Amino acid sequence: METVHQLEIKPGMSIDALVKGLGHCGFGARRLAEAVDIYEKMLSGNFTKFLTLSGAMVPAGMRNIVSELIRNGYVDVLVITGANLVHDIIESFGCHCLGSSESDDAGLRAKGISRIYDVFLRDEDFVAFEELMQKILPEGSETLSGRELMSHIGRQIDDEKSILRTAYEMKVPVFCPALPDSMIGLQAWMFSQTKRLSVDAFADIKEIVDICYESEKSGIVIVGGGVPKNFALQSMLVTPKSFDLAIQLTTDTPENGGLSGATLSEAISWGKISEKASYVTVYGDATITLPMMVAATMERLEKSKTASDNQG
Amino acid sequence: METVHQLEIKPGMSIDALVKGLGHCGFGARRLAEAVDIYEKMLSGNFTKFLTLSGAMVPAGMRNIVSELIRNGYVDVLVITGANLVHDIIESFGCHCLGSSESDDAGLRAKGISRIYDVFLRDEDFVAFEELMQKILPEGSETLSGRELMSHIGRQIDDEKSILRTAYEMKVPVFCPALPDSMIGLQAWMFSQTKRLSVDAFADIKEIVDICYESEKSGIVIVGGGVPKNFALQSMLVTPKSFDLAIQLTTDTPENGGLSGATLSEAISWGKISEKASYVTVYGDATITLPMMVAATMERLEKSKTASDNQG
Amino acid sequence: METVHQLEIKPGMSIDALVKGLGHCGFGARRLAEAVDIYEKMLSGNFTKFLTLSGAMVPAGMRNIVSELIRNGYVDVLVITGANLVHDIIESFGCHCLGSSESDDAGLRAKGISRIYDVFLRDEDFVAFEELMQKILPEGSETLSGRELMSHIGRQIDDEKSILRTAYEMKVPVFCPALPDSMIGLQAWMFSQTKRLSVDAFADIKEIVDICYESEKSGIVIVGGGVPKNFALQSMLVTPKSFDLAIQLTTDTPENGGLSGATLSEAISWGKISEKASYVTVYGDATITLPMMVAATMERLEKSKTASDNQG
Amino acid sequence: METVHQLEIKPGMSIDALVKGLGHCGFGARRLAEAVDIYEKMLSGNFTKFLTLSGAMVPAGMRNIVSELIRNGYVDVLVITGANLVHDIIESFGCHCLGSSESDDAGLRAKGISRIYDVFLRDEDFVAFEELMQKILPEGSETLSGRELMSHIGRQIDDEKSILRTAYEMKVPVFCPALPDSMIGLQAWMFSQTKRLSVDAFADIKEIVDICYESEKSGIVIVGGGVPKNFALQSMLVTPKSFDLAIQLTTDTPENGGLSGATLSEAISWGKISEKASYVTVYGDATITLPMMVAATMERLEKSKTASDNQG
Repeated sequence: METVHQLEIKPGMSIDALVKGLGHCGFGARRLAEAVDIYEKMLSGNFTKFLTLSGAMVPAGMRNIVSELIRNGYVDVLVITGANLVHDIIESFGCHCLGSSESDDAGLRAKGISRIYDVFLRDEDFVAFEELMQKILPEGSETLSGRELMSHIGRQIDDEKSILRTAYEMKVPVFCPALPDSMIGLQAWMFSQTKRLSVDAFADIKEIVDICYESEKSGIVIVGGGVPKNFALQSMLVTPKSFDLAIQLTTDTPENGGLSGATLSEAISWGKISEKASYVTVYGDATITLPMMVAATMERLEKSKTASDNQG
Repeated sequence: METVHQLEIKPGMSIDALVKGLGHCGFGARRLAEAVDIYEKMLSGNFTKFLTLSGAMVPAGMRNIVSELIRNGYVDVLVITGANLVHDIIESFGCHCLGSSESDDAGLRAKGISRIYDVFLRDEDFVAFEELMQKILPEGSETLSGRELMSHIGRQIDDEKSILRTAYEMKVPVFCPALPDSMIGLQAWMFSQTKRLSVDAFADIKEIVDICYESEKSGIVIVGGGVPKNFALQSMLVTPKSFDLAIQLTTDTPENGGLSGATLSEAISWGKISEKASYVTVYGDATITLPMMVAATMERLEKSKTASDNQG
Repeated sequence: METVHQLEIKPGMSIDALVKGLGHCGFGARRLAEAVDIYEKMLSGNFTKFLTLSGAMVPAGMRNIVSELIRNGYVDVLVITGANLVHDIIESFGCHCLGSSESDDAGLRAKGISRIYDVFLRDEDFVAFEELMQKILPEGSETLSGRELMSHIGRQIDDEKSILRTAYEMKVPVFCPALPDSMIGLQAWMFSQTKRLSVDAFADIKEIVDICYESEKSGIVIVGGGVPKNFALQSMLVTPKSFDLAIQLTTDTPENGGLSGATLSEAISWGKISEKASYVTVYGDATITLPMMVAATMERLEKSKTASDNQG
Repeated sequence: METVHQLEIKPGMSIDALVKGLGHCGFGARRLAEAVDIYEKMLSGNFTKFLTLSGAMVPAGMRNIVSELIRNGYVDVLVITGANLVHDIIESFGCHCLGSSESDDAGLRAKGISRIYDVFLRDEDFVAFEELMQKILPEGSETLSGRELMSHIGRQIDDEKSILRTAYEMKVPVFCPALPDSMIGLQAWMFSQTKRLSVDAFADIKEIVDICYESEKSGIVIVGGGVPKNFALQSMLVTPKSFDLAIQLTTDTPENGGLSGATLSEAISWGKISEKASYVTVYGDATITLPMMVAATMERLEKSKTASDNQG
């Protein structure tokens, strides 16, 4: 048996040096280190890379991590909640503010501020969002898939840090399986009252299932569970394939029986994840664990690159 | 200040007697008692009653509670995950089994068993589900809303305990905003490969927003957060109305910033819930708190009915 | 495989009828039902019955459940936090109040109110507690065990609902392994500045280990983890015995690695619980699950008694 | 209002650079950054520095972080669980092993392995621990405080990385308020069966209360709640002082009403923490958040030192 190495902190140590130390510890520390090992493998190898995102990650400041991953070719398929896309679009012209989770909510309402835990959003940004959407939503007689609609919108977001814009530029498909459940859905419906806009509820399924079919090897990073997790896993389920690598960052725990906290092992019983897969769940707030995981992995990839450049 | 009354347990006491006792206690006990008070008010008064359901409630045995509530007129709008509907349909001809949460998942896979925490489901029931869906999905040139599709399916489920069937019979609209994210969605897509079936992604929005507009007073019971919670709240958001009564049963907590655990107070800042509303969140497993809440409320309603019958 | 029976709610059904229904469900519902089965077995059979209590159970209104269990002979050993005993003593002359968890804490301080989540306590009750303690703490040259000190105090509490008083009357030993970590400890220390009071830090260990040694069969109910859980389990550990029945009601989950959320299975690896034991953990707020478990079990025991009385 | 700055990850960025970025985000990210700000202030200023430690931090690999903090003068008072001290002593001659949280616990028992979530410990190390304790426990007619006993033991641990040894060398008092609830307690009791060893249960109270009284300004880092949290806070409570800075790293949440998850704001109502205090709770696994917080703070202190050295 390998022994626990008591962690040593050195002032100025790098993030990956810290993570490597966590790998010889127990509990969440080791799981985070395992996640970095799996993510390094995923990003270095020939895997079709899925990223699913739920929870208010964009309002909480995780937008650029996601768009940078896309820009660097580290995401092949993005499955995301509508809310994160709404806030991605708002960030392209407006902003979120640092507020307090212990606010007088009726007072905020009176001031035109909506609260997402400790992040505030002003009504005027929602109004601007609505105006923008009515301007950029596509009119046409063709019935679109949700993925096509996302691509149309992304093309017209004028912000290179935008998730939707970057995905458009990098030709990364964006799936939002609960699109009606978002202000994009609301705006699309309002738009369609006076103009032609038709979106087929099921067309996305074909596109993502095709990607699953064609993946030789695949890996998935699941941030926060929810519909994006299930949609990606069920798409793999209907193919003979299964995920070879899987990382889950979640605050839910298995005991409640819900999918968001379900173990990745449970997904093996369904055939969604391969029984030979490397997988790990890191329990905890993804606004901490996602930056840690990405920063450590990027540090490793940079080092490999430098090493191979030097040998070149 | 009112004092804490130490709870007294009497052997054979009724569920509502216990709940009334909990109302003089602290922590979760008091919140559960408040939920019953609010639910009694909601079911006794002239409220448009929303129920949102996420988490694997049907596999866990909560199906008949929901269908009975619908049959008794205690639900006016149901917003639900596709997974719960899939399992509702499976229950109409097949079954879920009591398994173990500590199973060998690769072994289960080999035996054709899918695991949902400690509940098992056999592949043969999924196969039968697929066959049934291909038989009952509606063919037609008309573009349907998701709600209409649910109604079509419900009409053909031959089981009076079915949520979908009961909702069909009672003319209760069923909204499933993440329909593609379920095996109903997968089957509908497969069906549409060879037959005409067209579902408009956004049509449900109009229907539920109209209901919100027309509600004089409204109440909502949120089981488990997720897309159903958000869809119901956002529909109210776009009207001048807001929920007057709200109950949330969830295992998520606010600190993670996600919507599933967000306080109902947060929804006041958005204008989704009225600042004058009565509301409470009961933290804990809904397979315990939902039956308790419903049983205590039904006991109260039955007593009121008997009392008023006796006076008649 | 046994099937999930969808739960049926009947208005006016008894608590145990509801629990029996939960036993055919999944997730927390089934675990609660298993807890009742195990508890019925424990209370009906010839088991040495341990109860450990942590978390602010007395402020939250669970005091009389505990003292009634003791009075009815359903507790042979009580292991408890000092805080619960402090609040038990306060209840004998004062009270706790129903407050709000979202209070202005600086404002409360100014008013002389201390907050325990949504329960309030007035400074004057603490002052009265201190005066009472200085009056009833025993003076003497003999060195006491903690258990003996608890017995001395219990004898002088003039309230038959008091946990300490009832334990004294019923000769049930009360162990408080972190006694210095409570206001009883503080008061005892102040008392000992001017009078003779000497308590041996380790004397309790012998007493509880002896009980463990002499138990033919034993069962344990663990409410909330913490020091009481560990102290009871470690006492069994040093004997050749182990617990035959174990129930844990906790809000902690295993993933954090702490003892409070550790599975009971983990305790088997230590030899604290028998590998042949029946055991279950119910995750959730004990102010809901403890009353449910006790009420359902009492209902069963009453029915058995009535049945056997009728046959007599 | 300050805006959320979307976080930027740079490969090779330092830990503190990452943490500074998190400070402009929402949710747990911002709380972690606030914790670092408060910790920097605490370690740079003239504060009496309390550290409380519960949860299986030593088995999980956090031992050297704690002993280094002590050696560097960053801890003035340590309040800790007995279990962490037991494992600290075991690490001085033996080891903990990386195991799996999904083990066959009866099988482990048969092999003489005890499990702490995903960390294993061999019986032989416990046997060696017992032998060591019987050798180094102090015999004498004087009644000791718990703190004195800890100092005696620490003096005889031959490992400069040991928490107990380092505290002894640095003259940092170690308080273990639930000492009987640990294998040190068990061994001390066994020792006292044949030799003279007398520990006064309440003597520690005087020592820690005196420290609180004499603190001009004070700060506290609370890892994991439990008895150590309460003991430190209640000691401050009985003085006219209160903590000026407070950081809490915990997996518990407030909703359950227990002290471990109680907000630091709640402690203001008791007068344990000053209403003018800077304080923050970081929710999550301390095996991740503690290393992050310490590493970022050490990086800052090192930079300040280098800067002031350069100016000197």
